[in-house]
Amino acid sequence: MFICTQSRPHGGRPACGLRGGPELLAALREAVASRPDLWDVAVTGCECLGPCFDGPNAVVYPDGVWYAGAGPSDVADLVDEHLTGGRPVARLVYSFADEDDGDG
Amino acid sequence: MFICTQSRPHGGRPACGLRGGPELLAALREAVASRPDLWDVAVTGCECLGPCFDGPNAVVYPDGVWYAGAGPSDVADLVDEHLTGGRPVARLVYSFADEDDGDG
Repeated sequence: MFICTQSRPHGGRPACGLRGGPELLAALREAVASRPDLWDVAVTGCECLGPCFDGPNAVVYPDGVWYAGAGPSDVADLVDEHLTGGRPVARLVYSFADEDDGDG
Repeated sequence: MFICTQSRPHGGRPACGLRGGPELLAALREAVASRPDLWDVAVTGCECLGPCFDGPNAVVYPDGVWYAGAGPSDVADLVDEHLTGGRPVARLVYSFADEDDGDG
């Protein structure tokens, strides 16, 4: 699972680094590290994922499921429902349907 | 495509940030940006991917293909063969077979 922690100068395009990306990354890392059964799940910070205005952004592979706007209070659901149960957390899933030609 | 640019203090565990990760990321970004047909390919820096001793590490999703030890001179093959043609560049593909129980 990749979580954007991109920083940008204040006042321009928003950046996940100022929208809770680092806090989401830290909370997810702690939660996954406390679960031995999730030893094969990697939680990794990354640079820009694209939909900056809806961040913090994250993407789970190999599932190909994108999340936007999640915070530390969502971590339990992300871990229990998606990373453990394989069911994406619908209220947090990000759709690119309105952003491009539908291929994304 | 995620490319690790993780930095670490010199002298400890190796880090892709000192093994050419940033240079690989920059070269891939430039190559992909020059190819309008690859508009839907994102090249993104990331933190640690794991196999630090063989870095710089990279992973292509949704394919789930990992690369290790690639450099700027490999970018043309990565772009032409894999990102365009869908055929992983065999000489650079990283296998986890010797690192865990075979599930990775």
